[in-house]
Order: sequence, then structure tokens, then C-alpha cells
Amino acid sequence: MTYAQTLHQHLIGRQGSRRDLNTPALLVDLDALERNIAAMADRARQAGLALRPHAKTHKCAAIARRQIEAGALGVCCAKLGEAEALADAGIGGLLITSPVVGASAVARLAALAARSEGLMASVDHPAAVDAIAASGARMTVLVDIDPGLHRTGVADAEAAVALARRIEAAPGLTFGGVQFYCGSQQHIEAFAERRAAIIERTDYLKSVIARLSAAGLAPKIVSGGGTGTHAIDLELGVFTELQVGSYVFMDRQYEECDLTGDGRVPFETSLMLDARVISANHDRLVTVDAGFKAFATEAGAPPILAGAPAGSAYHFMGDEHGCIVPPRGERPPELGEVVTLAAPHCDPTVNLHDAYHVIQGDTLVDIWPLEARGRSA
Amino acid sequence: MTYAQTLHQHLIGRQGSRRDLNTPALLVDLDALERNIAAMADRARQAGLALRPHAKTHKCAAIARRQIEAGALGVCCAKLGEAEALADAGIGGLLITSPVVGASAVARLAALAARSEGLMASVDHPAAVDAIAASGARMTVLVDIDPGLHRTGVADAEAAVALARRIEAAPGLTFGGVQFYCGSQQHIEAFAERRAAIIERTDYLKSVIARLSAAGLAPKIVSGGGTGTHAIDLELGVFTELQVGSYVFMDRQYEECDLTGDGRVPFETSLMLDARVISANHDRLVTVDAGFKAFATEAGAPPILAGAPAGSAYHFMGDEHGCIVPPRGERPPELGEVVTLAAPHCDPTVNLHDAYHVIQGDTLVDIWPLEARGRSA
Repeated sequence: MTYAQTLHQHLIGRQGSRRDLNTPALLVDLDALERNIAAMADRARQAGLALRPHAKTHKCAAIARRQIEAGALGVCCAKLGEAEALADAGIGGLLITSPVVGASAVARLAALAARSEGLMASVDHPAAVDAIAASGARMTVLVDIDPGLHRTGVADAEAAVALARRIEAAPGLTFGGVQFYCGSQQHIEAFAERRAAIIERTDYLKSVIARLSAAGLAPKIVSGGGTGTHAIDLELGVFTELQVGSYVFMDRQYEECDLTGDGRVPFETSLMLDARVISANHDRLVTVDAGFKAFATEAGAPPILAGAPAGSAYHFMGDEHGCIVPPRGERPPELGEVVTLAAPHCDPTVNLHDAYHVIQGDTLVDIWPLEARGRSA
Repeated sequence: MTYAQTLHQHLIGRQGSRRDLNTPALLVDLDALERNIAAMADRARQAGLALRPHAKTHKCAAIARRQIEAGALGVCCAKLGEAEALADAGIGGLLITSPVVGASAVARLAALAARSEGLMASVDHPAAVDAIAASGARMTVLVDIDPGLHRTGVADAEAAVALARRIEAAPGLTFGGVQFYCGSQQHIEAFAERRAAIIERTDYLKSVIARLSAAGLAPKIVSGGGTGTHAIDLELGVFTELQVGSYVFMDRQYEECDLTGDGRVPFETSLMLDARVISANHDRLVTVDAGFKAFATEAGAPPILAGAPAGSAYHFMGDEHGCIVPPRGERPPELGEVVTLAAPHCDPTVNLHDAYHVIQGDTLVDIWPLEARGRSA
């Protein structure tokens, strides 16, 4: 049982119980979350593409289950440990999107493949393919293609063909297709600029697919994309499945992106954090109990959603604190009052917490553990 | 049992087992840690001051226990949840350094005071004192004094006296003394500049102590200080106990500080992270499996300690990855090889992990859970 459950289980279902939560408290607005899940599922269905949403964003079986119930093929996991946690919680159709390397990890991968239906891994190096094959794993493997970021992936079409052949020749392994994740293009703020970048990268992807097809290795699966580029990916239709993650929650980084080209925001902010004013000895600022250990710190300040005058700003004040500064002439919130903030960047934010407090209005309706919290190994 | 223990328990005591750890793996060099604990204990003993080291840095009962065995009065905890976790693990002499505010938190505080010997809390507001008194808590409370940071603490000597009187008048509460933590001065890199700043702040602290004494409220406890200012705090001798934290581990932020004024580094880096090369498709850089979710991200890049040519740099590449770039003409490490890095800032780094892999040389000798990981509420 997570500590959040120990502290707050008794509040579930009690009207207005949100205000009794100990803070900082990570919250999910259940109805907004479900609308986000449905909206992305509809958009994909209408475009004729499948979804394999990325669970790195939420690390939570309850959310993965809802995505699969809405039609997703399964979920992506960034790391082997994340996949183990979700598999243990009964989630299937997992694709591990980061390369699995090293004897200890490969042994775990083989064991997971034996117990998790449809488990797939992505590879970008012949030595890694050989190691996975030698482990006795029986599984489908995708070739990861470097989109130019040089983080993971084979360097070019020739390397993709060679690796796909090696997989096919390896006992126990099946070449399932390719992965192509344009990580650095996801957060290009202007739609036209992002679309141009993705069209250019997708032309490259198509050239690699063409080379594979010419070699008799046409990829059945073409997996990639993200929340930032999903509208363009759906339009271009080269992917067979999208690895969208952040749409379930939204955050300040994505609120600042034009996701659709027409200024509409297709998803709602469903992830929030309640922080409490714990020091209030100055007219111009008060201190809340959430700092570096409650929010992602590589993506700027969390925006304030409620509990302080419009135009108030949050500033980090160390590991456990932040300050709320209202505009001149306005009074800051008082000692004990709660301020609600959004995440600067949702993925690293949730990874700091053990559970989601699921709310409808001001009532706590459930607590969902992050089974895969901290699972970077 | 933490996942690290599930994965690695069987490796404990096996010669050279460090290389079999799944990565990223958070490591503590046991001998360096014990030398750091002993060195600070000696420095305090020689200066005639006590230690109440800050457990926010390590969040670990095994480390707190060693600090107390070396002579510490107890440990500080940043938040109530951190104190609960360490109390549950049998650690006593806890001082909660952040104000406890709100009905739910105050009820927990009262319950903790009843079961945790010597528990103390710090306060900075009359309403908070009243709430703690009304909860029925029987405990010692310190007045937190704002050192000018405006994060927590009473604004001036007059407010300190008023609050100390209120504590004394409150049923069940005892005024134990004062807390004074100069958070923004800890990382001033140049020793002379830091010393001048601390001398000035300590003069202010002395003036507050004088006012309290004149009012018949001479503080028995004067708690504060940190690793950055400890040498100066020991020299000035105004504190009765130091809240030093980071010295147990060290990190890049503190390596860049002159801690003693004579260029000596009095503590060793005992905290490290092993990361594995999981993608190696370019001559000029390789990718390791540690990113934003393995390291603090508000304090720059982690320095490389081993596993790559001298002069190599680490750059973050998202949540789960980083790249290692060697100097021109040198080759990066190969696929599967391990690179060892230090923390940019130790406190937020450890809070991302569930356990320490305790090593001597290349042998895993123990695994210590971070009982207080994530305990910001």
C-alpha cells in the first residue's frame, strides 16, 4: 500500500474530501482524464490509425487499462522495469521503447517475454540482437530508427535492413517492424514549423520503409509519434500506431504548443498538484510546501490554476518549498490555504510521487498507485 | 521490499557484483560514507558543538543510525512525512524543520509526538502554534527565524519573542529554542565571501537571541547551519547544533565550493550512479540509460567519475537518457559498458531512487532502502 493510501484511503467517497488531503498532493481530475483518453482514441479511429500510448507519462496500471479499454493495442514503456511493473499489474501489449542492453537486463527481458503476452522490444545494434536471441527469448522486436536526434536508433536505411535481416535470422526473434520517435520535434511551439519538420522527417522514414520493403522486410508495425506531433502524424498516416503520452494529463510545456494548427486545445489539463501555504509572514509573498521534490525542474515554473489572485506567479524555493507572489496590490493566499498548480512537464513530475489522488470536483473518489514509479532500470 | 532488493539481493557479498547491477543504479561507497560521518563528527566534537544532521539529504534510516552512533543528537527532517518514515524505522531525536500547517498534518504531528521520543517541530506563526497546542500534542517546539530568505521563519526579534511566549503559554508545548537556516548562503562558492555573509547573518541571529534572553526566554537550542557554512558555524560557535546534510555524500555543487578556506576538500564523494551505454551508433557520442528521472535537473550536468576518457562530458537527453561525449580524438565507451557519475545536487537526486546499493570496491555489500523517499507531505 502506498503512503498516500495509508494517509487518505478513509477519505475516498467523502464529499469535499479533497480539502483534507495532506499536501503536496498529486491529483487527477477523473472526468477530464477520461475525456482526454476518449478524444485521442476518437481522433486515431477517425484517421484509421491505432494507439499504443506511452505509459512513461503516467506509470499507472489504472490509466493504462482505461487507454486499452478505449481501444489502444497496449502501452509503450520507456524501460524494462516500467514494463515489468505494468505487466505485474496485468497490462499486456507492451512495447519497450528504449534499448535493453547488458546481461542482467537481457535475462529479465527473456523472463518477461515468457509471461507478458505480446511483449515487444526495440533494438538498434546487432550485438544487442545477438544477446537477446542467445537468452532464449521468444518475442517480436522492432528496429529503432534514429530520427536525427542521435539518442537511439540505427543510423540509416542500410543499417535498418541489416538489423532486420539479423532479427529474422535469429532463433526465437521475429522482426515486427520499426520505431521512429521524433523526440526533439514534439515541443516545437508553432504548428506550421512543427508540421514542416515532421513532414521532412516522415519523408526520411518513408525512404527507410521503402528500402526495407525492397528487401522483402516491409514493416508491419510503424510505431512512433507523440502528443506534440499527433495531429500531423494522423494526417500523414505513415505510422500504424502512435506512442502518444502527455495528452492524458497536459502540462505547461504542451499548453504552450499549438497542437492542432487552429489554436484549439484538444486536451484538458487533468493533472494538478495541491500545495498548502505553510509560511505567511510577508505581505508580498507566501511559501507553499511544494518545491523541487514535487515538480519537474527542467521545464520552468508550474502555472497556478487556482487559489491565488490572477496573475500570481510561483517560484521555486528549494527542495520542499516554493513561493506564491501575487500581482502588486493583491493579497497572497493565507496560511493554511491551498493553491492548485499544473505540472511544468508532466512525465518527470509524476515520477516524484507514489500515487494519484483521483478527484471529481472536490471529492476524492480513488487513489491509484504509480506502479512503475522510479523504474528507470 | 524495494525493487532494487528484489533485483539485486542475491548479489550481496558476491565479489565484483557491482558489474551485475541493473542500471541506472544509485551507489554509496560505504567506506567513504563512514569517513565523512566520522570527519564531521570529529570537527563538531573538537569545536564543542553538537550535530543534528539533516536526513533530507539521504532519507535513509541506515545512514541516520550511523550518524547517531557517531554522536549526533538525532536527525532533522524537512517534512512531517519524512519524520514519520524515519520514526517508523526506529530513529529518534527528530526535528521537523519545515512548518507543519493544516488540520490533517497537525493531527499526524500530535500522533507522532506521542510515539517518537524527543520529536521537535519548528514554527513561525501564532496560528500554527495554537493549532498544534489544540491538537493535544505534548512536545518541544523551536521558533524558526527568517534569515532574510523569506521562505520560512518569523520576521524579526519582536515576533520571535511573541511566538516564544505563546509557546510557553500553550498547554502541552515547551519552547525549546530557535532554528536559523541560511539556505541561500550554503552554496556561495568563495569561502571569504561565504564567511562574511555568515558573520553578518550570525550577528543578526545573536541580536535575536539577546532579545529572547532579555525576555527570560534564552534559547537552550540554537539549531541551523549546513555543509556549506559548517566550518564558519563551528568557528563562530553560536549554534548549539548543526543541521549539516550533504557532507555525507557530496555532489558537484559542493565540490565547486571552497568549504574550508584553504582549498582542502574535507569530505569525499560517496554517492555515485552507474549508468550503462545502451546505444552506440555514432563515433562522437554514445547514449546511457540515465536522464532526468535519475538525476537532479536543477543543478547542471552530473560530472563523470569513471568509465569514459578524461574530459568527457555528460549531457541530458530527456527523461531516461543522457549522452557521453569524449574529447576530440578519444573514443567513447562501448555498448554495454558502465559509466560512473556523481550527483549534480545530491538531495533531489536520491529522492528519485528507492534504494542505495552499498559498495566496497566493486562488491555490493548491502542495499539500504530510502524509507523517506517521496515524503514531501
